[in-house]
Amino acid sequence: MIFPEIDTPAVLIDLDIAEANIDRFQVHCSKHGLAVRPHIKTHKLPMLAKRQLQAGAIGITCQKVSEAEAMISEGGIDDVLITYNILGDAKLSRLRALSERTRLSVVADNHETINGLSRFFADASEPLSVLVECDTGAARCGVTSPEQARALARYISDKPGLSFCGLMTYPPVGQEDAVQNWLRTAKAEIEKAGLTVDVISNGGSPGMWQAQDVPIATEYRIGTYVYNDRSLQARGICTWDDCALSVLVTVISVPANDRAVIDAGSKVLTSDLLGLEGHGHVMGRPDILVDGLSEEHGVLRAENINLKIGDRLRIIPNHACVVTNMVDQIETIRGNRALGAVPVVARGKVL
Amino acid sequence: MIFPEIDTPAVLIDLDIAEANIDRFQVHCSKHGLAVRPHIKTHKLPMLAKRQLQAGAIGITCQKVSEAEAMISEGGIDDVLITYNILGDAKLSRLRALSERTRLSVVADNHETINGLSRFFADASEPLSVLVECDTGAARCGVTSPEQARALARYISDKPGLSFCGLMTYPPVGQEDAVQNWLRTAKAEIEKAGLTVDVISNGGSPGMWQAQDVPIATEYRIGTYVYNDRSLQARGICTWDDCALSVLVTVISVPANDRAVIDAGSKVLTSDLLGLEGHGHVMGRPDILVDGLSEEHGVLRAENINLKIGDRLRIIPNHACVVTNMVDQIETIRGNRALGAVPVVARGKVL
Repeated sequence: MIFPEIDTPAVLIDLDIAEANIDRFQVHCSKHGLAVRPHIKTHKLPMLAKRQLQAGAIGITCQKVSEAEAMISEGGIDDVLITYNILGDAKLSRLRALSERTRLSVVADNHETINGLSRFFADASEPLSVLVECDTGAARCGVTSPEQARALARYISDKPGLSFCGLMTYPPVGQEDAVQNWLRTAKAEIEKAGLTVDVISNGGSPGMWQAQDVPIATEYRIGTYVYNDRSLQARGICTWDDCALSVLVTVISVPANDRAVIDAGSKVLTSDLLGLEGHGHVMGRPDILVDGLSEEHGVLRAENINLKIGDRLRIIPNHACVVTNMVDQIETIRGNRALGAVPVVARGKVL
Repeated sequence: MIFPEIDTPAVLIDLDIAEANIDRFQVHCSKHGLAVRPHIKTHKLPMLAKRQLQAGAIGITCQKVSEAEAMISEGGIDDVLITYNILGDAKLSRLRALSERTRLSVVADNHETINGLSRFFADASEPLSVLVECDTGAARCGVTSPEQARALARYISDKPGLSFCGLMTYPPVGQEDAVQNWLRTAKAEIEKAGLTVDVISNGGSPGMWQAQDVPIATEYRIGTYVYNDRSLQARGICTWDDCALSVLVTVISVPANDRAVIDAGSKVLTSDLLGLEGHGHVMGRPDILVDGLSEEHGVLRAENINLKIGDRLRIIPNHACVVTNMVDQIETIRGNRALGAVPVVARGKVL
């Protein structure tokens, strides 16, 4: 039986693989003169954030104020970019408190966000660094033209307590040239307006090996690369051997020759498909389809399922980031050696 | 602003609606002489489990041992059915400890599960009640023929520490006649073998108003009905006014006339589609499609989005059960009155 000391279902993190992933991308970016600012959404662990900083990262990225609070709770992390429009007195007051404890920067794509930030930082000893979020094609948040980016940069720079420091984008996949052109135009416009663009923050694991193809970027934000997953393997970004996260499960029922049921469902593997068929890759059994999930059951199908009740399997999920958010703790391993559980400190931090 | 005292995103539970949902189905089943055994997977709250028992439920259903432990932690719940093949010494030892604190029953669809249960209960003062899980068409767990059900009932009844007490099925939707026939045949087979079938446990919110169409069932397990959700509304099982759970969100970006972004993504609403288009129903704005989710962003689309940054919305998710599993606490409300946060005691209990 594999990992008999660990009850199932459990999320396993192979630290050897995670560390190799961290180092490989750091070397890649260092070679191209690009700074790395890992997004902690994937691991949610101060331990691995510190490992990323040791490898050469310049700071971390969080999406929410509560994530940043959780990540700096242990010390050792002192540069955090929150890539989110932060709104509302509750969050702004926590952001201000956080700024007394760590070097912070945030993003904004609208006046209301900037007005709120200025209201809470007008009397701060240091101005808050604010980047303009730019929609370079992904159609999520962000100003939609370089001209808007220039106007918002000016708006930030005129506001008490704030300092305009650059541009940030969550780019569309595979459109490096368009992203480069968008950002170059915006930078030129802003410089014409007399402002300096110190930081241009690009990111995304799907485009990680083309990070250097947006040479105007000064830093790259990246999350999933630390663990990798089935969606990145399917895109050719990594191999199965580079996948640090797997879900350890037990076969609890074998009702038919072509079907077995495991003790992990959407409450661990999640329903994220990311365009794939099935809900994960069964290590060593590529013939098996993880066909259907209910909350606590996963239905496996294969022409000849050839599994016994009590058998253990490891499944590489479609999407690693959302899986770590389902569990209060992960089990660290190195190869076949179990090293113990670690709490997922920034799990469920949505505020 | 709606619920200004609650920071977003937040999961709101309207207790007036939840209580009405509990009472309405209890009345329906009582009229038909059917016992109700609510599945706590939807609310995960001892508070609402006790309210279900007060309304007339005979006990509760849990899927995992750790859920049962969490639910009885406060007292006041003393009859728990765990509808799962429980395997492995760690879980069996906890199950045995639990049996000293509450009236327990479990299910099994195979010899290995039964052997494990017997090993841990052979020296118990009371035998453990075991139901045979039957696959009446849903193709998840369960023996696949009435003959297998009879053989497994015999196997249980011959095992030290165990007592065969009946049949349990998670039925296919809309096939009440087939389910009734399957269970009637199995019951007759088992009685021919000299055993008594005390309990026949059927369930499922999609078939709740047809529960009486499987008259051989003695009890009905039901989870989602307490909150309802978009998937049940789409099936005509409930109206929007019967939906007790909504997600309170804030508009954080309005990049275009036809698009806005909210501060809730798959980390709250989840990726469960259940066959629907979009990720939820925006209350009061049926023209809006909750089009895409990333972990912390939701993209809303409408011909004329007509939303301002800072606006608050309430979204009824596709699947209520998985949403309560994402958050450490829910916010209780009655109508427009906020009553305070309650910890989701049985959240993330997958063992």
